Amino acid sequence: MKKALELAEGVKGLTSPNPAVGAVIVNNGSVAGTGATSPAGGPHAEIHALKMAGSTARGATLYVTLEPCCHHGRTPPCTNAIIAAGVTRVVVAQSDPNPRVKGKGIARLRRKGIRVDIGLMRKQAHFLNEDYCWSIVRQQPWITLKLAMTLDGRIADVQGMSKWISSVAARKRVQQLRRNHAAVMVGRRTLLRDNSRLTVRSKTIARPVRIVVGTQTALGVDSHFALNASHLRSIVVVSGGRGARSLTKESGVEFWYTGEKHFPDSMQRFFKRAYEEGITSILVEGGGRLASLLCEHGFVNRVCFFYGNRILGGGMPGLAFAKARPLANARKLHQIAFEHFGDTWMVTGLVQRK
Amino acid sequence: MKKALELAEGVKGLTSPNPAVGAVIVNNGSVAGTGATSPAGGPHAEIHALKMAGSTARGATLYVTLEPCCHHGRTPPCTNAIIAAGVTRVVVAQSDPNPRVKGKGIARLRRKGIRVDIGLMRKQAHFLNEDYCWSIVRQQPWITLKLAMTLDGRIADVQGMSKWISSVAARKRVQQLRRNHAAVMVGRRTLLRDNSRLTVRSKTIARPVRIVVGTQTALGVDSHFALNASHLRSIVVVSGGRGARSLTKESGVEFWYTGEKHFPDSMQRFFKRAYEEGITSILVEGGGRLASLLCEHGFVNRVCFFYGNRILGGGMPGLAFAKARPLANARKLHQIAFEHFGDTWMVTGLVQRK
Repeated sequence: MKKALELAEGVKGLTSPNPAVGAVIVNNGSVAGTGATSPAGGPHAEIHALKMAGSTARGATLYVTLEPCCHHGRTPPCTNAIIAAGVTRVVVAQSDPNPRVKGKGIARLRRKGIRVDIGLMRKQAHFLNEDYCWSIVRQQPWITLKLAMTLDGRIADVQGMSKWISSVAARKRVQQLRRNHAAVMVGRRTLLRDNSRLTVRSKTIARPVRIVVGTQTALGVDSHFALNASHLRSIVVVSGGRGARSLTKESGVEFWYTGEKHFPDSMQRFFKRAYEEGITSILVEGGGRLASLLCEHGFVNRVCFFYGNRILGGGMPGLAFAKARPLANARKLHQIAFEHFGDTWMVTGLVQRK
Repeated sequence: MKKALELAEGVKGLTSPNPAVGAVIVNNGSVAGTGATSPAGGPHAEIHALKMAGSTARGATLYVTLEPCCHHGRTPPCTNAIIAAGVTRVVVAQSDPNPRVKGKGIARLRRKGIRVDIGLMRKQAHFLNEDYCWSIVRQQPWITLKLAMTLDGRIADVQGMSKWISSVAARKRVQQLRRNHAAVMVGRRTLLRDNSRLTVRSKTIARPVRIVVGTQTALGVDSHFALNASHLRSIVVVSGGRGARSLTKESGVEFWYTGEKHFPDSMQRFFKRAYEEGITSILVEGGGRLASLLCEHGFVNRVCFFYGNRILGGGMPGLAFAKARPLANARKLHQIAFEHFGDTWMVTGLVQRK
């Protein structure tokens, strides 16, 4: 199962809207086949592993990080292939929360006399697909908020400068975060100020989807955002407008009008639509205003706060709510964890929803 | 030497204005004597170890965390005792930066034919007495700034509430910090608001000295500060007044007038005087205003920033300088280190002085 999880990790971020799954087939104590989910529309992990194993799958044990599917999606059900291959035991890390699967895959295997064990390394498997598990149930994208702050909690100095608060090693970790999400989102002012590419620095991956949130449509025509819109899906979310509608400019930039002026309503509309278009997870990279609004209105699932080795004594605070919370009712994180990157460190955790 | 460092650590905070030193005498591969510095005025570590070793000190090796003294202070020079006991080798972790010693102790031992090796575990030994090493040269107290912040860098919510941002385990660490410093200092408003005891919770230690900084002399007569002033040295630093002068109230609270109105001048006066009275290190515990002033004016040697698992989205920032720094000229820490206490963690480091 450890090997299966590693395989799944290897394709994390490439399989959206599908979960990242790994599968290992073991026969007589040796590995007969391995597989990981292909990009959406391609075969699932189990199919790759079964193909590799061929006839040695007969009588073998399949380790898989997520319950095999039993429904016709873009690919036929994996359960059928497992049954046909003669696998006699399936070890599943966690069941699939997708309402179309949710134990039905396991039940189908058991009905065919296959022994199924559930729960081996469940925690790790769930962590790997926390975005999928959440979004498939809520039908809206999982939101990770990333902020890079100084030791005194500022994301920019008094002049608005925000480069580079964190270490080079930490910025590599941000690249990984981008890779693991279906989309990256920033506020319009942050885009204009930083002229960020919002891309994963890799020649082989034309991802993730780039999203800018604003109340206006004006964007620099020579910004990195506009210039790369032809080969990277690029969406500008515009609050308001007459009803929800879209508009695609010649540059390839899509303008999504939410038809709602009020921030939480506008975002809710946008999230619903984004999910329908296969955007199951979004990494929000600021600015402070967008981050604060999303956090205050309870849209954030996970935070990744990077703290760089800088003290400013002033500047833009990382989070400034319209209505600051009293200490007794502060938002808290659970499953808090720490990572170090030279003199920068990261705190991550799930935002308590209440 | 490891054992000697442990012995020194055991008395850290109790020996001020002397450094915390540990000594171990080894003869024929077995420990013949151990010692640590007594509270000021009592015997030094070497003397304890020599007494314990008795005649077995002859021909033995002495491991000591700091260069033995060679001058008459409140006790006679340790070098004389070492020579008299017939020790043949001395291993010193670091030389004593005290201008009255500074290699003279080592030179004296060598002149008497004793082999002296320097530098074993020097880094650890220096860290243990960083406050002493700094203050003995500059003739002013070493300043550690401790702040407990939320994840978004606030030390209090919008109502001014600041209890309890950090975890219980982290607060125990704060107790240890207090124990390791000769004095604890807060701003007047913080004292009045928190009504803090500023004491080490221990029945045996009537320490550290408590210092309050303000421009006024008014303090609640029934505050913990005033009520404990009879058995704990308690100083109120008052900016201004006609020339530097003191006044001791019946309660035992001392009022030190600095004769200077301008903050850095006033503090400089105060620090000079505090050092003269044996206060070699001060732990500053806030509030934000005092912390910011000290940090902005370059008085802080080490920071200990605790980050509690709370998000407020508003409230009092931990540091707010009169003139915030641009990112390119931000203050940085060196020798940065991290500690975790449940869901609270601490970042500590030396403040770059420039």
